[in-house]
Amino acid sequence: MKRSQYVVIGLGRFGSSLAKELINLGYEVLGIDKDEEAVDEMSDTLTHVVTADSTDEDVLRSLGIRNFDCAIVAIGDDIQASILTAILLKDIGVKTVVTKALSELHGKVLQKIGVDRVIFPERDMGIRVAHQLVSPNLLDYIELSNDYTIVELSVPKRLSGRCLKDLDPRAKYGCSVVAINKKHGVIIAPSAADMLEEQDVMVIIGTNDQIESFESEVINL
Amino acid sequence: MKRSQYVVIGLGRFGSSLAKELINLGYEVLGIDKDEEAVDEMSDTLTHVVTADSTDEDVLRSLGIRNFDCAIVAIGDDIQASILTAILLKDIGVKTVVTKALSELHGKVLQKIGVDRVIFPERDMGIRVAHQLVSPNLLDYIELSNDYTIVELSVPKRLSGRCLKDLDPRAKYGCSVVAINKKHGVIIAPSAADMLEEQDVMVIIGTNDQIESFESEVINL
Amino acid sequence: MKRSQYVVIGLGRFGSSLAKELINLGYEVLGIDKDEEAVDEMSDTLTHVVTADSTDEDVLRSLGIRNFDCAIVAIGDDIQASILTAILLKDIGVKTVVTKALSELHGKVLQKIGVDRVIFPERDMGIRVAHQLVSPNLLDYIELSNDYTIVELSVPKRLSGRCLKDLDPRAKYGCSVVAINKKHGVIIAPSAADMLEEQDVMVIIGTNDQIESFESEVINL
Amino acid sequence: MKRSQYVVIGLGRFGSSLAKELINLGYEVLGIDKDEEAVDEMSDTLTHVVTADSTDEDVLRSLGIRNFDCAIVAIGDDIQASILTAILLKDIGVKTVVTKALSELHGKVLQKIGVDRVIFPERDMGIRVAHQLVSPNLLDYIELSNDYTIVELSVPKRLSGRCLKDLDPRAKYGCSVVAINKKHGVIIAPSAADMLEEQDVMVIIGTNDQIESFESEVINL
Amino acid sequence: MKRSQYVVIGLGRFGSSLAKELINLGYEVLGIDKDEEAVDEMSDTLTHVVTADSTDEDVLRSLGIRNFDCAIVAIGDDIQASILTAILLKDIGVKTVVTKALSELHGKVLQKIGVDRVIFPERDMGIRVAHQLVSPNLLDYIELSNDYTIVELSVPKRLSGRCLKDLDPRAKYGCSVVAINKKHGVIIAPSAADMLEEQDVMVIIGTNDQIESFESEVINL
Amino acid sequence: MKRSQYVVIGLGRFGSSLAKELINLGYEVLGIDKDEEAVDEMSDTLTHVVTADSTDEDVLRSLGIRNFDCAIVAIGDDIQASILTAILLKDIGVKTVVTKALSELHGKVLQKIGVDRVIFPERDMGIRVAHQLVSPNLLDYIELSNDYTIVELSVPKRLSGRCLKDLDPRAKYGCSVVAINKKHGVIIAPSAADMLEEQDVMVIIGTNDQIESFESEVINL
Amino acid sequence: MKRSQYVVIGLGRFGSSLAKELINLGYEVLGIDKDEEAVDEMSDTLTHVVTADSTDEDVLRSLGIRNFDCAIVAIGDDIQASILTAILLKDIGVKTVVTKALSELHGKVLQKIGVDRVIFPERDMGIRVAHQLVSPNLLDYIELSNDYTIVELSVPKRLSGRCLKDLDPRAKYGCSVVAINKKHGVIIAPSAADMLEEQDVMVIIGTNDQIESFESEVINL
Amino acid sequence: MKRSQYVVIGLGRFGSSLAKELINLGYEVLGIDKDEEAVDEMSDTLTHVVTADSTDEDVLRSLGIRNFDCAIVAIGDDIQASILTAILLKDIGVKTVVTKALSELHGKVLQKIGVDRVIFPERDMGIRVAHQLVSPNLLDYIELSNDYTIVELSVPKRLSGRCLKDLDPRAKYGCSVVAINKKHGVIIAPSAADMLEEQDVMVIIGTNDQIESFESEVINL
Repeated sequence: MKRSQYVVIGLGRFGSSLAKELINLGYEVLGIDKDEEAVDEMSDTLTHVVTADSTDEDVLRSLGIRNFDCAIVAIGDDIQASILTAILLKDIGVKTVVTKALSELHGKVLQKIGVDRVIFPERDMGIRVAHQLVSPNLLDYIELSNDYTIVELSVPKRLSGRCLKDLDPRAKYGCSVVAINKKHGVIIAPSAADMLEEQDVMVIIGTNDQIESFESEVINL
Repeated sequence: MKRSQYVVIGLGRFGSSLAKELINLGYEVLGIDKDEEAVDEMSDTLTHVVTADSTDEDVLRSLGIRNFDCAIVAIGDDIQASILTAILLKDIGVKTVVTKALSELHGKVLQKIGVDRVIFPERDMGIRVAHQLVSPNLLDYIELSNDYTIVELSVPKRLSGRCLKDLDPRAKYGCSVVAINKKHGVIIAPSAADMLEEQDVMVIIGTNDQIESFESEVINL
Repeated sequence: MKRSQYVVIGLGRFGSSLAKELINLGYEVLGIDKDEEAVDEMSDTLTHVVTADSTDEDVLRSLGIRNFDCAIVAIGDDIQASILTAILLKDIGVKTVVTKALSELHGKVLQKIGVDRVIFPERDMGIRVAHQLVSPNLLDYIELSNDYTIVELSVPKRLSGRCLKDLDPRAKYGCSVVAINKKHGVIIAPSAADMLEEQDVMVIIGTNDQIESFESEVINL
Repeated sequence: MKRSQYVVIGLGRFGSSLAKELINLGYEVLGIDKDEEAVDEMSDTLTHVVTADSTDEDVLRSLGIRNFDCAIVAIGDDIQASILTAILLKDIGVKTVVTKALSELHGKVLQKIGVDRVIFPERDMGIRVAHQLVSPNLLDYIELSNDYTIVELSVPKRLSGRCLKDLDPRAKYGCSVVAINKKHGVIIAPSAADMLEEQDVMVIIGTNDQIESFESEVINL
Repeated sequence: MKRSQYVVIGLGRFGSSLAKELINLGYEVLGIDKDEEAVDEMSDTLTHVVTADSTDEDVLRSLGIRNFDCAIVAIGDDIQASILTAILLKDIGVKTVVTKALSELHGKVLQKIGVDRVIFPERDMGIRVAHQLVSPNLLDYIELSNDYTIVELSVPKRLSGRCLKDLDPRAKYGCSVVAINKKHGVIIAPSAADMLEEQDVMVIIGTNDQIESFESEVINL
Repeated sequence: MKRSQYVVIGLGRFGSSLAKELINLGYEVLGIDKDEEAVDEMSDTLTHVVTADSTDEDVLRSLGIRNFDCAIVAIGDDIQASILTAILLKDIGVKTVVTKALSELHGKVLQKIGVDRVIFPERDMGIRVAHQLVSPNLLDYIELSNDYTIVELSVPKRLSGRCLKDLDPRAKYGCSVVAINKKHGVIIAPSAADMLEEQDVMVIIGTNDQIESFESEVINL
Repeated sequence: MKRSQYVVIGLGRFGSSLAKELINLGYEVLGIDKDEEAVDEMSDTLTHVVTADSTDEDVLRSLGIRNFDCAIVAIGDDIQASILTAILLKDIGVKTVVTKALSELHGKVLQKIGVDRVIFPERDMGIRVAHQLVSPNLLDYIELSNDYTIVELSVPKRLSGRCLKDLDPRAKYGCSVVAINKKHGVIIAPSAADMLEEQDVMVIIGTNDQIESFESEVINL
Repeated sequence: MKRSQYVVIGLGRFGSSLAKELINLGYEVLGIDKDEEAVDEMSDTLTHVVTADSTDEDVLRSLGIRNFDCAIVAIGDDIQASILTAILLKDIGVKTVVTKALSELHGKVLQKIGVDRVIFPERDMGIRVAHQLVSPNLLDYIELSNDYTIVELSVPKRLSGRCLKDLDPRAKYGCSVVAINKKHGVIIAPSAADMLEEQDVMVIIGTNDQIESFESEVINL
């Protein structure tokens, strides 16, 4: 199967990070920015880079953008350019257009003009960091539903040498330990006898209340 | 136990989203920005807001910032203000100072001057979105280690009505289904007989290779 | 029947002329512009005027814009403000939203976001003036279809004292004289005996070719 | 007969539309603007384009502007450049100089310095659009005198299948139907038996009062 | 007889000097400038001063400018404001409007719009200073015609103690000594016996050639 | 005798007029300005022109400015550049440095640093124009001392056909008619029988009071 | 004896440091700057502070500057303001005017207009730091003449416990040890038996050559 | 021994003076500034000069900066550039990094990121000049400790012809005369019989109190 090709328009902090990771994942990426300096900085990293104004239809056509599977509009601060670029990309026939929105209103316009996916990276990252701040041992998490979450918690020094059965999260709090990430490997579905050490990381699944109780009574003492 | 108090300096897209989420999580938040308009917009949301220049030590002292448990410096584009604010916060005795970095070099300076945690929200969000783009069914994920990941995958229509044992991910690919998020609730540690429906979401744990094989051969067909 | 109420956003040359004419036609008009000077200049002319930023939803709501029958977005040079204002107006429930477009691309975005009517005043006026330039006696015209036009032609001095039957436009060129606008009144459906005088204006209907021949062979000699 | 040649100075929205229409009408057009980008955009459309400062007499002379029949000064926002260009054009001997005015005062200066025709496109277009807004079925119109107007009205669905004699506009309202533009052609001077269909357009001549009564009692019910 | 009243618009170096001298000559002067600082500086000197935009007709009317005998438009660098102000002044009925021109083209526009007198102070002063530079003893001069000039020459030390008859300018050069300005008074039509002293100033009338010969052979030796 | 050579620094309205007049008077002139456009405009008029920064000593030396007899610093609005240029010119040994002052204070600095002559063209011209405005028949004048003036007065129509003895200015007002500039030539020291005609110009010498009486009672009636 | 009073104009880094030190030395200081923020920052430190434009003579007079003994013009980057301020200060009669020069040319102008002392702080500090950089043990120095210098050298660890006679600088290098600054006090004119310790500082006098040899052979080994 | 090599980043007044003095002292100096003009001015003076952005790590590496013994960051007004440059210099391994600080806070950041020496040239020069202002005969000084100072005092005319024993500073004030700098040479450790002349300079060592008494009672009478 032919691998997808991506064009990333806007090579600021978000756009360039996204483009680099696509390269790391093995895809071809064309990077476009109207600022020559931003383009130069990515020239050794991406498959192709072009300094161009993405609101100019002729430019997009001459670059053959219509043949790309997916275009990501990651324009930093110019709502107008973001909107005009997105509508042009849909017009010339790019199958999937993903666009970064700078505000709720901007997001609404993008949806109306037919953008396939609108993303709010700073807003989403703000939420994610807030959770990490209030739970010092929380490394990462996935919100499964309004009720259920999977969390990745670092094991505090105080629990070093304790077995899972000592903590007994399922019996006491209703949440399950999915895995323990230890220095020498990951134990999936650990048994009650598995021992915790400092620097271990537990992956727990449960309702928000269950996990919050477990965190506040066992981890963050 | 007294709950933590947070001060968020810089109320741009990232800072305001972070501050709002802290409020949602039940904490008190003081928001500071030197732009009056940005401050006004958050005045109904946060506990307190102040229009002030955070690089002025007298201002920070008069606001009693030293009594806050944690300060987040989320200044948008001014590296100098970010550095000077961070060092002042450490100097006047804020216990935890978290600072957003705009570049690797900026991050390095922040670490040298003693910032407790340096975050790169746009870079991290770029990476996260890249992963979601290349795996259309990937909703979210946690990287446990270099090898192991937990992924949240939406079940494609094609698999509707199939049991887990039909797919048998553990036997065929080595990865385990941790949970299935169904319309009517989450099934933790599902059994082989549990049936998949469209709009279900599976949570899978395994090595990157195992999950990639499972995705490409079973999910993203 | 209650008369319609109009809100005109953007009081530049086009917007203020439109708003004034609506007043002349007997309607109530609220004028909005973010430039205080532009607003002041219209304060004696329009029913109400307000200095406000039309991209701020709270502002539009507090002004009760949703109760207006028709909103005209005549913002001069700011495509972004034009788009955001238009989508807000539709969102808060204004029945008819008419918006001035600055370019084809801008017009396309406006249509996609659901604007009821997109107008291109400078483009349309350019076309109209071009026609008047190439036919020095052409005062005004209506394009009925691709083929048929009604034109208003001033009678040149040379034809003063001639009867319609001398010219016989219907027999010779196929086009009909609908009316003659004379100093002392308009003659509708003039007879062959009606005499032309200098400063009279003829209204002619016909195909473009018929009229062009009549103009070049009879009028613009 | 040698066809006229036009020079259009100022290639903004109004100027470029006017220039393009002159080309469509078969004339040669030289376009001048001091902004290179504006000039480039018209280079494939107009006979010749030049990037130049039109307030520099040497430039105008070297371009041979004096040999053009008609110059249109369509400079966007710079009243000074508009005035100086217009006086230079008269000075070097261009027969007809048409100039766009940005304000009444500007128009007065232009007349004093001998410009042949002063136009106010935004003002005129504002008036025209206002009329169309208040009469939803009004497509276009020509003001013959202070009293008499010709209007082009779309036939509402409700009147589909009715004959002209049913409406009898001449007897009831005093105004005459000049023509009906039907899907398959234009009927000039229609008879009482001609039937109206949806999407037909009527052309009516009469006094303003007659037409207004006809519109409000027959068309816009 | 009622003395004239002057309004000076533009209080830069030229305008303020002119206004001050009118005051010195015993006239009433209203000074107008749009720059508040310039107005403040003249507030103790002129009869009245106002900070106002002279291109706004309402402003000019409310100040009663139409009742002034003479208006001088001495606006520094803004050709547009100069033209618009001048035409407004003529329109509202100021009898005499004098305007400073910044260039030949500007001067031509001013004449076309009916300004009573156009002055070019920097150009005229440049010419005057040039003459003084090339004749080191020339203090001032009046050009009577293309041929005749009156000059004011300082008497060099070398001629101290000489009688007019020694120099005999009329016999030798054809030019006449009109007056001698001596320390203790002016001698009109001096006799041949009048003696010259250092610091005396001679007033001479003659053709340019006569005076040039006299200067180069007698004065500037 | 070798003719003087002049360098004019600053080619604005005053400087370029002065430079042109020096050329007209037959001298060689080097023109310098840091604005390329200003330099280009004078390139056909002056002996040499250079685009250069006159505050850079190396530049002045490389141009050989020290060999010029006289330098005129006519820099428009930049007091700092004017001062630094003037001191450099004196330093490198230009014999005579004449500098235009923008204010009294500027003039004082120029004198302190050794400039040979400080001129105030706008101030002086303002005074001169003021005199002409208040005496409509005054064409030009020379102030000989605080008391005595020579004036050039146009003869009003009313006096056409009158002899000098009718007016008898010496007997009645104490002032003398030095010359009459007639259409066909200048009459020096006219006799009582010489007749005045319209368009003649009289040159009168006298005290200010004498001339004012003569003007108001004889000329400006 | 009445103590001197100082006025410091320009409160940048140099001016504010100088003003503070004068306060420390017990003098009264008036600080003036046109930037309000700079003035505010010094308001608690100096005797008086004023926000004012020092190039305005009226301002200087109203502040009574003429009664100060010494004025220091420490204006940062504006050569014109520095020159105009300095000449005003001399004019109104300040006895001693010290002015910071930004360049050699600026310094020359300042001297010509009669400034009492011209200082070049950045230039002088650059020289001083250069000397300290090349001699790592050099703490400070005074250049007595082109040949003789007094230097303050830190004693390296290696010489700890050695007596002056071991080093014998006078005999071996010709330079004398004037004093040793020890932890517990300064020994003036130390004897040959005085012992050096780490952290001692020697003060040496001699010719540049003598000191350089002593440094390179004894100290900086 | 190989001589040290220096790189000076920032060629403003301080940086260029420092760099020039290092050259005078016989060292090789590479000068870097991002302003081309500043670089050009030093190109004839320094060993090498480069126009470059010092916050770009690749640039610093390609210039081989890591091989220099000492880097001086003398960037004028850009705190951010100063901090980023300094941390890069430490990172790539420059042994000694000296950096100019613009404020106390800036200095604190520089120390935290590991700069070897932070200098405050304007602040230090302000202090030094303050001392010279209050003691008119003080030429220079070294502060040995909080108590002891060496001062260089010019001998006033009044003391000309007096012997040291007449003044007897050691007996009367406790301070010693270290040297007398006379027109024809320096006398080290002068005897009581040495006579003072005008223009001599005395070097005195003592406590601050001793020297102040000596100055006020003997020198500055």
